[in-house]
Amino acid sequence: MIANLKTTVLDEKFKALEAENAPGQEVRQDLSLLDNVMKGKKLDGIPVDFSHGNVDAFPPTPNSENYWLNGFKQGGAQAYTEYRGAFDIRKTLAKHLGDFTKKPVLADSELILTPGTQGALFLALGATVATGTKVAVVEPDYFANRKLVKFFGGEVVPVTLRYLESPSKSGLDLNELEMAFKNDTKVLVFSTPNNPTGLVYSKEVIDKIAVLANNYKVTVIVDQLYSRMLYSGETYTHLRSCKVQPENLITIMGPSKTESLSGYRLGAAFGTSSIIDRMERLQAIVSLRAAGYNQAVFKTWFNEPDGWLEDRINQHEAIRDELLKIFRDANLQTATPQAGSYLFPKLPALSVDLNMFVRLLRYQAHITVTPASEFAPHLNDSIRLNFSQDHDAAVEAAKRIVKMVEIYSL
Amino acid sequence: MIANLKTTVLDEKFKALEAENAPGQEVRQDLSLLDNVMKGKKLDGIPVDFSHGNVDAFPPTPNSENYWLNGFKQGGAQAYTEYRGAFDIRKTLAKHLGDFTKKPVLADSELILTPGTQGALFLALGATVATGTKVAVVEPDYFANRKLVKFFGGEVVPVTLRYLESPSKSGLDLNELEMAFKNDTKVLVFSTPNNPTGLVYSKEVIDKIAVLANNYKVTVIVDQLYSRMLYSGETYTHLRSCKVQPENLITIMGPSKTESLSGYRLGAAFGTSSIIDRMERLQAIVSLRAAGYNQAVFKTWFNEPDGWLEDRINQHEAIRDELLKIFRDANLQTATPQAGSYLFPKLPALSVDLNMFVRLLRYQAHITVTPASEFAPHLNDSIRLNFSQDHDAAVEAAKRIVKMVEIYSL
Repeated sequence: MIANLKTTVLDEKFKALEAENAPGQEVRQDLSLLDNVMKGKKLDGIPVDFSHGNVDAFPPTPNSENYWLNGFKQGGAQAYTEYRGAFDIRKTLAKHLGDFTKKPVLADSELILTPGTQGALFLALGATVATGTKVAVVEPDYFANRKLVKFFGGEVVPVTLRYLESPSKSGLDLNELEMAFKNDTKVLVFSTPNNPTGLVYSKEVIDKIAVLANNYKVTVIVDQLYSRMLYSGETYTHLRSCKVQPENLITIMGPSKTESLSGYRLGAAFGTSSIIDRMERLQAIVSLRAAGYNQAVFKTWFNEPDGWLEDRINQHEAIRDELLKIFRDANLQTATPQAGSYLFPKLPALSVDLNMFVRLLRYQAHITVTPASEFAPHLNDSIRLNFSQDHDAAVEAAKRIVKMVEIYSL
Repeated sequence: MIANLKTTVLDEKFKALEAENAPGQEVRQDLSLLDNVMKGKKLDGIPVDFSHGNVDAFPPTPNSENYWLNGFKQGGAQAYTEYRGAFDIRKTLAKHLGDFTKKPVLADSELILTPGTQGALFLALGATVATGTKVAVVEPDYFANRKLVKFFGGEVVPVTLRYLESPSKSGLDLNELEMAFKNDTKVLVFSTPNNPTGLVYSKEVIDKIAVLANNYKVTVIVDQLYSRMLYSGETYTHLRSCKVQPENLITIMGPSKTESLSGYRLGAAFGTSSIIDRMERLQAIVSLRAAGYNQAVFKTWFNEPDGWLEDRINQHEAIRDELLKIFRDANLQTATPQAGSYLFPKLPALSVDLNMFVRLLRYQAHITVTPASEFAPHLNDSIRLNFSQDHDAAVEAAKRIVKMVEIYSL
């Protein structure tokens, strides 16, 4: 108990930030009582932590540490950059991001470097959400979106993403979205490729979102963290290159996932300059800047060795296909990720609740996954796997998940 | 203009975060119109940026880059730590911080690693300040304290720090402090050594703050960033080792200043475990964690080569003494910093306002300083210098400041 603060307000606020089941925090859980719940024996196998990518199996972009060392050797100029990041790095990056998203980015006014894409999301929502601001949040979507809106005092307006229907019927519910916009929603935040399902928003849907946001004057924050890891046959549409544009649009990307540079905490946000200005002011009191020396590693981004990205995508596609087959053979309904490295299989009715099953997976089968409830509060029948893992270990672990489902099926 | 957000609320909020004159942001200012204001010619001399320490003149702790590289080589385990930081590093650091502050720190529950001390301050105030919370803020003090309180919706209750009187009369106004506490103030945030004056709070004052905070149930956040660089003859009192303790106390430190590790963005907060818990939940949505590989550099902290810290202190003391003499010989009243590397000389009446004088210093004399108004809103007669600079360049620059004061004196 923290006495003598505005206890109820702050307790409430921080309850909404509960992180016990968040990816990476599992180590803080007490699993000692699970012996009483566990059915049968522990399952043998190499432990696999599907809560995030395995950067030992898929190591960082080649030579990233040498780029870092060059940054370190630059000394003060690299240690103390503008809060929005070193200008020379922004200049190079703005060109790459403009080319990739098919619309130029102005290095001086339209780009900020952040501590990871998490940092970019925090700053973008902090710059656009005040007490009572209605924010459309897709369900399911990245777990922090909802928490951020609540932290800044905003009101979450959920919009449904269908992801288990046939490809032609999957996608964002645009009627719900327009209804939300009509009802005074001021901000939309969403990820494409979607986290946790790997669904890539179609050109039709992206175009429609842009038109609706323009009509209803809604600010859009689009998280494209995984947009470089696009599987064969898929196409990707960047909202910022649509013909009709929202008046305020921030696009977020970063090299933490496909490029395995998460240990550097690097992200980027680009778009409407007045929002970028606000984000920088907020950055100034949050952590000043993305770590100076680390910023130098941005120079590896969109600058990888020839063929490196293609190889990485192919290796992930092979894991994706094998895991999909294992889950589908066991009748676990699973959408096909079109990009990124998340799988989101649906489980049958079980004799234990989802959080307990997830803990049992860890205790009994040496597998860490993230429960669906992190991505949509009322979703309790699915688990998210980041399959950026050692191929063989991931396959064996997927088989153990199937076995665990059999053990605990009703 | 950002249309269609809660414009007035957010505009107001971000106006309070204005960072145009903040240290490090000077490069974004347009100085092209100063030719019309400038008296006389530009002054020759090596440019000196007193807005922050010069890590080329005082380089990072020896071998920090090798510690970093060892962290990088550890791969995934170091890239993805708990949000509060890697346990093995917290364990070592808790021991050092406990020894230094003369009270044990529990590694598991009482310590969080953050992206710089700025990150620690942000999390600590975010965890304790809600809309309407009254927060006692010392004036002058670190510029972000006030901004943070406002950002979280709190109300700033200013408390005066006297720093130009004789040593026996300098210090925090304890009557004002008690009055603030009586009037429902719930949080006190302050730095000792004080930024910008270098004043170290005496044992008597620290003891009294602890007793008052305990009596009135006020949460205390104390920023001890510069407490390792203590000059000869001075003593330092850690609030957390006082006999009477506030119920809620967070101490903040980091290796960015004395140790010149700012380019790594590393900080630490330690104290009341329920507040540390909240800080971690907030960290989870702000930027997940201090950059993983960088955390390994904490292993250099309180573990420097023999004599290294003493040498560094002696070198700074020599610069301090020479600059003090230059300013005092020119009748610029300046408090003697007891610790840290800030000098805060008071200027006479000038023919231009403070912000203009600061810009002229940059344009005409190649010197960057921070105006007093960043540290106390109504203070407009002083400038802050971080004198952690090349000794000779700093001395020449101090002489140019004196010359500029002569040029613009009324």
